Amino acid sequence: MTHSDTLDLSLQLLRQPSVTPVDHNCQDIMAKRLAKIGFNIENMRFEDVDNLWARRGTESPVFCFAGHTDVVPTGQLDAWSSDPFKPEIRDGKLYGRGSADMKTALAAMVVASERFVAKHPDHKGSIAFLITSDEEGPSINGTVKVVETLEARQEKMTWCLVGEPSSTHTLGDIVKNGRRGSLNGVLRVQGKQGHVAYPHLAINPIHVASKAITELCETVWDAGNEYFPATSFQISNIHSGTGATNVIPDTMDVTFNFRYSTEVTAEILKQRVIEILDRHGLQYSIDWTLSGLPFLTPVGELVNAAKHAIKHVTGTDTELSTSGGTSDGRFIAPTGAQVLELGVLNATIHQVNEHVNIDELEPLAEIYEQILVELLAK
Amino acid sequence: MTHSDTLDLSLQLLRQPSVTPVDHNCQDIMAKRLAKIGFNIENMRFEDVDNLWARRGTESPVFCFAGHTDVVPTGQLDAWSSDPFKPEIRDGKLYGRGSADMKTALAAMVVASERFVAKHPDHKGSIAFLITSDEEGPSINGTVKVVETLEARQEKMTWCLVGEPSSTHTLGDIVKNGRRGSLNGVLRVQGKQGHVAYPHLAINPIHVASKAITELCETVWDAGNEYFPATSFQISNIHSGTGATNVIPDTMDVTFNFRYSTEVTAEILKQRVIEILDRHGLQYSIDWTLSGLPFLTPVGELVNAAKHAIKHVTGTDTELSTSGGTSDGRFIAPTGAQVLELGVLNATIHQVNEHVNIDELEPLAEIYEQILVELLAK
Repeated sequence: MTHSDTLDLSLQLLRQPSVTPVDHNCQDIMAKRLAKIGFNIENMRFEDVDNLWARRGTESPVFCFAGHTDVVPTGQLDAWSSDPFKPEIRDGKLYGRGSADMKTALAAMVVASERFVAKHPDHKGSIAFLITSDEEGPSINGTVKVVETLEARQEKMTWCLVGEPSSTHTLGDIVKNGRRGSLNGVLRVQGKQGHVAYPHLAINPIHVASKAITELCETVWDAGNEYFPATSFQISNIHSGTGATNVIPDTMDVTFNFRYSTEVTAEILKQRVIEILDRHGLQYSIDWTLSGLPFLTPVGELVNAAKHAIKHVTGTDTELSTSGGTSDGRFIAPTGAQVLELGVLNATIHQVNEHVNIDELEPLAEIYEQILVELLAK
Repeated sequence: MTHSDTLDLSLQLLRQPSVTPVDHNCQDIMAKRLAKIGFNIENMRFEDVDNLWARRGTESPVFCFAGHTDVVPTGQLDAWSSDPFKPEIRDGKLYGRGSADMKTALAAMVVASERFVAKHPDHKGSIAFLITSDEEGPSINGTVKVVETLEARQEKMTWCLVGEPSSTHTLGDIVKNGRRGSLNGVLRVQGKQGHVAYPHLAINPIHVASKAITELCETVWDAGNEYFPATSFQISNIHSGTGATNVIPDTMDVTFNFRYSTEVTAEILKQRVIEILDRHGLQYSIDWTLSGLPFLTPVGELVNAAKHAIKHVTGTDTELSTSGGTSDGRFIAPTGAQVLELGVLNATIHQVNEHVNIDELEPLAEIYEQILVELLAK
């Protein structure tokens, strides 16, 4: 298949060079289509970020499609086999920045809504779209602010389907019903500078911290659970030293990250890290940044609707997963909404020559439409 | 005492801004004085480095004064209470760059030789001076090259007194009869880059190396011996990480230094490091630089002459030490010469407001003269 409604809209969106946080008209393209089928359009701009809140209907339950129009930078242009903002179809694949993450999903959402509304103009509850242009950036003026606005006026989502590329080998093989929490720590170990020839007059922060670092690397933080893999600890950066080979440095800086399950909390992890550092007698300071609370949508209406829809369209028995990086779902889940991520294959996201199989596009629109049928058809 | 022969010559030398590797006429000032009392003068310039080899007499044994005219940079000039190259006397102290390290010792050597020659014009053997302007720099075209030249023509030193500031609390309390070896290693641990959310797909070099690093820090390499403290291992620099908090880095670089005793060798240390790294299963490369072999002058003629001279002049019972950093003695000792370091207090070397107590100058010249008497008077 090289022509379809979903492909057409995908191409339109892919031609917009919407490098984060620039929306570059994408939301307007979507909004015009949605307005035609009865959606109420609200543009919510916060600082330099465009956000779209569109809703068809005023009743509960509210089914929301969530996603982002921004894309990550292209990187070296000459590493691409075609212009990342001039989408090309070659060998059954659609190439372009954002083709997998996640403009084809945005197109499928719009097309699915159009088809569903055409068949079920008088559907139950409401259909909504929460679209931002700040998912790939700092994520400060995007979904967070829209959710705050909705919460302030007590506008609730019941179910939220985020169109992130969740699939691994075939369309719909994996849906993400939660994500791990993400906790960053920046540790500064204090020593005392000196000459390597006189180590008794100095305190080498690299030496005094080495056992504690080993213990942090080897600690089993939890065993995970039915939905989550075990919590993982990774040091991403370690730096100490003046550059000179004969100077014992005065400090060492260590940056680390936890991806954590619902078996622990950020507070528990902090306490356990501090207990280890204190037990090794270190002088240190530590700055924490909680970049995402873990969230989980247990099996229920939304998960079942997605499973049925995928089976219906592709024949695949989908698997639930909470692995991988964070997504904007972490901002929506705390409102009480059931949140699920379902989209195309994620094999090439954030890479040069990002692409998606053309064969995934129409089936994804069909899956999205079928989910609407499961949840909102009368 | 605010006037003396040693002070006068010290002031002359301190007025020369001889920042390494520039000699700025210092060697000429010394050579003119030595020529007057019968020294044969040889200027040995190698690349940008001036060296002086001066010798009075042709017979063995040869007693050599060794030292350097170059000084370390001043650092921030406004941190000095007076111009570092306009020596000033305040409160019994002589301030100026090189006052402790080691122009006052050079002055004391010249004055001691003049006085000794005046009283013992027909002394035994020979007196020599080996003076360089590249001790504080890379030490490539200084003492090393002079020693090579002397060795090539089979000109040997019997005893060599290096005028480095060896004293700690009072003049002559410590003399250095050896120095530890210095071995540098640059280790690169190889991992595999990845996303912190998918650690199973990556190899974190910080994590895989942490136990080996701990073991290197905790290993007892030897127990030292009568003359040497135990061998010490210090990591001076450790660097890994892309700067991003969500990326597992692909490599970690670790720079370390051994100060080692005569109980081990550089080869033994290398083997033991490699054994530890291999046992922990690391993928790595390592570059070694041997920056100084250890040397030792056991108690004998030179040590005894220095002990007697110090006791005679100051009443102090001196102690032998091999601690501290490297010196040019490491290049002279391999020729078979007995090597000893004896000079003023080292409390302010390489610092702003470097100074020496005026009261140390004449006694140091007297100690040097007395050593000549002990070894070369008929």
